[in-house]
Amino acid sequence: DGAIAIKEGYIQWVGKMGDVPNPYKNYECKDVKARLVTSSLIDCHTHIVHGGNRADEFRLRLHGASYSDIAKKGGGILSTVKATRALSEDELLDISLKSVDKLLAEGVGVIEIKSGYGLDIECELKMLRIASRIEEMRPCHIKKSFLGAHAIPPEYKGNPDAYINDICIPALVRAHHEGLVDAVDGFCENIAFNANQIAKIFKKARELNIPVKLHAEQLSQQGGASLVAEYNGLSADHLEYLDEDGVKSMHKAGSVAVLLPGAFYYLRETKLPPIDLLRRHHVAIAVASDYNPGSSPILSLLTIMNMACTLFGLTPEESFMGTTQHAARALALKNQGIIDVNYQANLAIWDCDSIADLSYRIGHAPLYKRLFLGRIIQ
Amino acid sequence: DGAIAIKEGYIQWVGKMGDVPNPYKNYECKDVKARLVTSSLIDCHTHIVHGGNRADEFRLRLHGASYSDIAKKGGGILSTVKATRALSEDELLDISLKSVDKLLAEGVGVIEIKSGYGLDIECELKMLRIASRIEEMRPCHIKKSFLGAHAIPPEYKGNPDAYINDICIPALVRAHHEGLVDAVDGFCENIAFNANQIAKIFKKARELNIPVKLHAEQLSQQGGASLVAEYNGLSADHLEYLDEDGVKSMHKAGSVAVLLPGAFYYLRETKLPPIDLLRRHHVAIAVASDYNPGSSPILSLLTIMNMACTLFGLTPEESFMGTTQHAARALALKNQGIIDVNYQANLAIWDCDSIADLSYRIGHAPLYKRLFLGRIIQ
Repeated sequence: DGAIAIKEGYIQWVGKMGDVPNPYKNYECKDVKARLVTSSLIDCHTHIVHGGNRADEFRLRLHGASYSDIAKKGGGILSTVKATRALSEDELLDISLKSVDKLLAEGVGVIEIKSGYGLDIECELKMLRIASRIEEMRPCHIKKSFLGAHAIPPEYKGNPDAYINDICIPALVRAHHEGLVDAVDGFCENIAFNANQIAKIFKKARELNIPVKLHAEQLSQQGGASLVAEYNGLSADHLEYLDEDGVKSMHKAGSVAVLLPGAFYYLRETKLPPIDLLRRHHVAIAVASDYNPGSSPILSLLTIMNMACTLFGLTPEESFMGTTQHAARALALKNQGIIDVNYQANLAIWDCDSIADLSYRIGHAPLYKRLFLGRIIQ
Repeated sequence: DGAIAIKEGYIQWVGKMGDVPNPYKNYECKDVKARLVTSSLIDCHTHIVHGGNRADEFRLRLHGASYSDIAKKGGGILSTVKATRALSEDELLDISLKSVDKLLAEGVGVIEIKSGYGLDIECELKMLRIASRIEEMRPCHIKKSFLGAHAIPPEYKGNPDAYINDICIPALVRAHHEGLVDAVDGFCENIAFNANQIAKIFKKARELNIPVKLHAEQLSQQGGASLVAEYNGLSADHLEYLDEDGVKSMHKAGSVAVLLPGAFYYLRETKLPPIDLLRRHHVAIAVASDYNPGSSPILSLLTIMNMACTLFGLTPEESFMGTTQHAARALALKNQGIIDVNYQANLAIWDCDSIADLSYRIGHAPLYKRLFLGRIIQ
């Protein structure tokens, strides 16, 4: 029996059908019957723009190959870097649009996209330009994160500091001047960059007045979450190895904990992120697909919401908040992720009964229609 | 560069395009470009026909409710029995068709459907009739399994033997006379029926000359697999608690091991089925969705194939064999699941490069077109 009044892409009024105030009574009325209406979903952590796939690596691992076997055969993240560098901007855009369309068809209206498979100045810029072009071509918002500090490219093997200085910082500055950076991200891990190296990039981000976020505490405890907090970062992501001090500093800084159950699932991790500590210290929890060709080739945010419940024990309500209002906060979106006055009319209309139903099933595709800035999309 | 000659629904010839023999050269030619072509998939264990959903139970569990709390609130399998009994045959058919369509859209061409949410004579027959009607209405094969011994209905609480005698056996006989039974199934578990009770039904099945299969060794070791073997059963399904003696007896009987990783995932099981023993003793491994509203609400056989790899460590090739030729064997289908001469032309044409790609990703919907008995479906 609910009603939402929408004008020029924004929500004007929300309430019961019987209470619609006079000014809205002569708006054109769309009856969606007894369907569930929510904010459209927000996928706040993806690596959608990339070349190639890693099916063969998946296969080799299941045939018993170790990570080092695979690395020797040119597998792993650097194989994706190679494939991404090899494609033209238009080729990469085409592939990326197909992936974006799958997410949108499931009720997603905002997607964060990271660079980080270029690892040279031109290719990092290419990835961010593609992200930018996607927003022009599809009815959705795209938020662009600069992730130069994702991995050490072969050209700088054994010399991460030089990579940060020679490539990462100059690429960030150029991307920023082209208007391609909404946030600066990094991968703080023993297989990637240490906290000092990340801090160098964060300092530059602060200089440029760009908010930061970080892949932190995924495979080991590196103090990444505290580093993010020190810079009042938007979010720390992954967080399987986050400890209570890290949780406290995130709470103080207002950083969001972005959980990525897809990577946990694919990597067969057993150490769970500290959900109860996050709850106890009132850290907002977001949930994202982490869509990438290695550790989370999952193009379904609804499946990820199920994994957040099934694998991490989130309630369906937490899982839903994690892909709407908390995801909005992880992307610094002030007027999205909630159905309320002055919020953008980005809505999903579902063929199901309850919020729990969105997380409960896999493979059901329950989206009826999506609205983007008040316009009916599908 | 491959070619397949098809006539009247059957495969006449398979080989290289350059080697097509004379009689087939003037067949109408469909070029599917460089796409992967496989047998269409076979989902050999589902409970697709059912009323209601259990999203609320999923939610309550994640809010900390125990199984007995949920049972007290009328939840669990008996809530599905109640919902299934309450719907008319046509209502239940409509709901079931929607689910079937989701599987078919992913490249499935054969679906096994079980009764077992009726638990009274009329409703068990209703479920099997619906399964039968689905086959008339959709381009696919349906195999119907009688699963009267799925749970003990409230009317027979504490009295499973009377339920077997009064309901199960008479329902089986009637269903058989109506031509509604391709196999007889049961649930052998401490929360369902013991081996003696199952044996009673299997004896009747033998009398009627119907092959048997069984939900066995899922939550505890009950000797179900050996029981299946004793009756030369088509398959034993689940099998987390299967031991080496059970594996050996399955090998001797030629029974297929049907693995159901969806239920393993939803129930957060930790005990894996004995994959290496199955391999060592050359027991054929099939993989199925187990689609049901409680322990496996997953309407995607491709996602299940990924789970078989990621959670159980099957190779992508095993996962694929598990949903094609081994699944065919679990359903006693002699001429399906393989691309070969005299096999049915039930094919899937995929927008992907390799067999590994089918299991590697989730949410990609790679099906290009499906053929059913030589006819292009979608």
